[in-house]
Amino acid sequence: MEKDSFPQFGTTGRKLVYDENGKPCRTCNTLLDFQLATGKITATEANTSLVNKTTNNNSYRDDPPDVEQLGRSSWTLLHSIASKYPVTPSTEEQLDMKNFINIFSKIYPCNWCAADFRNYIATNAPKVGSREELGKWFCEAHNEVNEKLGKAKFDCNLWEKRWKDGWD
Amino acid sequence: MEKDSFPQFGTTGRKLVYDENGKPCRTCNTLLDFQLATGKITATEANTSLVNKTTNNNSYRDDPPDVEQLGRSSWTLLHSIASKYPVTPSTEEQLDMKNFINIFSKIYPCNWCAADFRNYIATNAPKVGSREELGKWFCEAHNEVNEKLGKAKFDCNLWEKRWKDGWD
Repeated sequence: MEKDSFPQFGTTGRKLVYDENGKPCRTCNTLLDFQLATGKITATEANTSLVNKTTNNNSYRDDPPDVEQLGRSSWTLLHSIASKYPVTPSTEEQLDMKNFINIFSKIYPCNWCAADFRNYIATNAPKVGSREELGKWFCEAHNEVNEKLGKAKFDCNLWEKRWKDGWD
Repeated sequence: MEKDSFPQFGTTGRKLVYDENGKPCRTCNTLLDFQLATGKITATEANTSLVNKTTNNNSYRDDPPDVEQLGRSSWTLLHSIASKYPVTPSTEEQLDMKNFINIFSKIYPCNWCAADFRNYIATNAPKVGSREELGKWFCEAHNEVNEKLGKAKFDCNLWEKRWKDGWD
């Protein structure tokens, strides 16, 4: 699909969002709209999927998250933050990221997880010099936790596929 | 269940975590362990559930999150952070929270969502004077987004049930 043929609006009438390189932005669009923008599905297919999508996804009466749901949610946010971090961040952006990680390690709402993360930071200072550095640093921090939980490690050379570009 | 009869270890052998009031901590334990600790299920039931739990939850080859998954994940973290924020925070804790929210509004990995959040903050300064204040402030910020998306508003008087204590 040629860039100048990218659609302007998604299935719900929402304006489609493209990043600075003119590519559709994953974390700024719904999955259906992203697939529409990349030409993976047609507008008709997108509309059909939208109508079939369960509308009853009201989670207002859910119970609070447990440690696993909280962990998944938090890693989703952190890796995604890395995926949008500037390739060449300014001094201010680097300082913001250091402060963010530092405060995160103090306020993370599972006390023993937060203490583990503070210990990790103490011996593995956050690397905020570039998107690549930060993405790998988060990936390695996550692997440290995976290892503690007896889970497989993720190949950090692939972090951009998992959290930024997708697999195809 | 009497406090002194609370179990010490969960289904996987993990030590159960209790908060400063001696109550089982939701965001520090798995759901099964939390239910075990609160006496909602027996050790036998917990073990059966654990065995039946799908072990094939490997998400290493998932695609990056879309705007909806990112939003759900981020609100889960933010509301949970409020649920663990001190009832009477120190000056330093209040400053940390202000900085955290401010940096969050700059680095949130959906650019138009981040801009909306910065606009919200500009006219609704974060309230960090107590857990109650912060919890309601996040709830109201979330409702502003719910309203824009045509979703029902959440009754912010119930935020602690949804994000801290549960419904029963």
